[in-house]
Amino acid sequence: MRQVAVLGIGQTIIDEQWDKSLREIAGEAAFAAMQDAGVEHPEGLFVGNMLSPLIGGQNQLGTFIADWVGMWRAEAVKIEAACGSGGAAFRAGLMAVASGEMETALVVGVEKMTDKAGHDVTAALTTAADADYEVEQGVSFVGLNALVMRRYMYEFGWKHADFGPFSINAHANAMHNPYARLHDRITIEQFERSAMVATPINLLDASPIGDGAAAVILVPAEKVSSLPGRPRIVVAGSASATDTIAVHSRKDPLFLSAAYLSAKRAYEMAGVGIEDIDLFELHDAFSIMAALSLEACGFAERGQGPRLGLENQIQIKGGRIPVCTRGGLKARGHPVGATGMYQIVEVAQQLRGECGRGQVDGAKTGMAQNIGGSGATIVTHILKAE
Amino acid sequence: MRQVAVLGIGQTIIDEQWDKSLREIAGEAAFAAMQDAGVEHPEGLFVGNMLSPLIGGQNQLGTFIADWVGMWRAEAVKIEAACGSGGAAFRAGLMAVASGEMETALVVGVEKMTDKAGHDVTAALTTAADADYEVEQGVSFVGLNALVMRRYMYEFGWKHADFGPFSINAHANAMHNPYARLHDRITIEQFERSAMVATPINLLDASPIGDGAAAVILVPAEKVSSLPGRPRIVVAGSASATDTIAVHSRKDPLFLSAAYLSAKRAYEMAGVGIEDIDLFELHDAFSIMAALSLEACGFAERGQGPRLGLENQIQIKGGRIPVCTRGGLKARGHPVGATGMYQIVEVAQQLRGECGRGQVDGAKTGMAQNIGGSGATIVTHILKAE
Repeated sequence: MRQVAVLGIGQTIIDEQWDKSLREIAGEAAFAAMQDAGVEHPEGLFVGNMLSPLIGGQNQLGTFIADWVGMWRAEAVKIEAACGSGGAAFRAGLMAVASGEMETALVVGVEKMTDKAGHDVTAALTTAADADYEVEQGVSFVGLNALVMRRYMYEFGWKHADFGPFSINAHANAMHNPYARLHDRITIEQFERSAMVATPINLLDASPIGDGAAAVILVPAEKVSSLPGRPRIVVAGSASATDTIAVHSRKDPLFLSAAYLSAKRAYEMAGVGIEDIDLFELHDAFSIMAALSLEACGFAERGQGPRLGLENQIQIKGGRIPVCTRGGLKARGHPVGATGMYQIVEVAQQLRGECGRGQVDGAKTGMAQNIGGSGATIVTHILKAE
Repeated sequence: MRQVAVLGIGQTIIDEQWDKSLREIAGEAAFAAMQDAGVEHPEGLFVGNMLSPLIGGQNQLGTFIADWVGMWRAEAVKIEAACGSGGAAFRAGLMAVASGEMETALVVGVEKMTDKAGHDVTAALTTAADADYEVEQGVSFVGLNALVMRRYMYEFGWKHADFGPFSINAHANAMHNPYARLHDRITIEQFERSAMVATPINLLDASPIGDGAAAVILVPAEKVSSLPGRPRIVVAGSASATDTIAVHSRKDPLFLSAAYLSAKRAYEMAGVGIEDIDLFELHDAFSIMAALSLEACGFAERGQGPRLGLENQIQIKGGRIPVCTRGGLKARGHPVGATGMYQIVEVAQQLRGECGRGQVDGAKTGMAQNIGGSGATIVTHILKAE
């Protein structure tokens, strides 16, 4: 397969965008990416989305969005892997261009979640879990993650406050991201006093939902030159792996084996080790997931993920592995099916050096990891600036 | 890209399978395909499904089914393109193997629709249409097709009875397919007297929904030998195209431009013309769609599709272009997201010569065309026996 480059990127603000329809939000990100790339008519469209059938009454989003952005007649399809939909759509677009099947692909992650009441959204999000064996017991998606976090704290002896640095870092980084949903610094005191959602997960452990879209244009790398001030961004590593859909089926519910596997394959494909990764856009839907991702990907020992936060190793400035550099799911926001594409766009922004006060100095290699369900589908990508 | 072969096939009966869950139905087809292929651990899974989030409360079907069939840790993803989901999933699996990304792929189309009441299913099916501009007006999916059929009859001067041969042929062919939902021959008198659904579409113009799954195992063609009595089945042509999502946006709502485009590309890729196609599994969700598909793919002149039926050109025995040889959507049944995979499995059965009294004698080249929405997403595949 040939190498593929991210030529253009685009994103919308994440917010309660009640004045815009799903197609308008998707179009805004898509047009921004097309303009950024100077590509008017991509040959194919790959859409990542999870909830549009349930919340918007709209299926067939591939064609729906292709129609809206003027890609008449082009191939278009939707990919769904719960909250991992964006990363999975990126991988599908990547494969289409890498295989030679098309010369340009547009990938859009989009979600419009805030048109429904909170309990409807909570119900819709449980479709990521096992309907027959988990949801049937009355557990919500945050409830499942709370069970994992509680067990983790018990096994490895962490206090709730030890997870605070993940959220504090995400909120601090979002201050420099105009597209982020939340723009407020938080303290460890606020983190500890925040309203409980599902013990031990409180409001500041959990990422806010939102409406938003992020998009890229993919082309063969051989067609892109590295220009002064605008490096060529190539997709150096890409892999996807799964685990059991239900958390209770896992031998070890505290290890993200699909994160481990997909990261391992992505490292091998890119020819890099963890020491080469300059930043990591990880899937901090809940603070516990930040710890588990860092462990599975090799940045921390088993059970020691929180230590990275406590020892100031995740910050943009001076951290060994800066994470959530644009705010992460926690503060940039988590429009579920779009999140994986926000991560890709954010890594590209860092590699281009376009992040201003949120810039990771000299970033050359960045990783994005998108998770569907409670670690059930995990897609890992490594991008390099050349 | 390298050539890909269909090594194994599997399918379940289409019925109201209230005693089986979606995962059991998907597993039945998947295990049959794996056994048929002699492949125990495919590297990747591509699932075609439209309605599981809405009817079963289950998203993330890729991982959900990978887990069930023992594909632990493998890559898995769901593809959705309304009723074109099965064909789109097949194309995604094809690209994964053709690109060299994996050596074996399992593709499963699955749908479980009959657990909900009819009006819930009708509402769920409208998510294939444009929620903002079509469904908002109160039109159902069959209503949209009825508008197209009525206009077609007006433009080209056909009577309702002229569409009868499509349904009569489908019902006759399903008599030889043990997996078909309906096993009853119908007459033109029954066709004309059938209960009206949405004028001019009556019950015998419309395909029945159902629960079912169909699956294949894809491998590189170079790894498969042609054996006596078991030819090698290769995917010779594959293409996908789209049209506007809303029917009212089309310059000509009576021409399936996405069928035309995807068929044209598939013919070119396969190096065949319409005269080489020995059978055509078309998407007769409604009888009007059979006529429009035959026209767009070059088998009939514009407005003359019904003539092929009236002149006995679509039958298995002696027809110029046998269609719906296993019963089509009309009588085999239409478990929406699975249908495209049933078509692929049926073409493979014909090319293997396994159809008994329903066999198209000497079939060497077969075509399958799967449609999402009212002609909005169309995927065309050409398979060859070697």
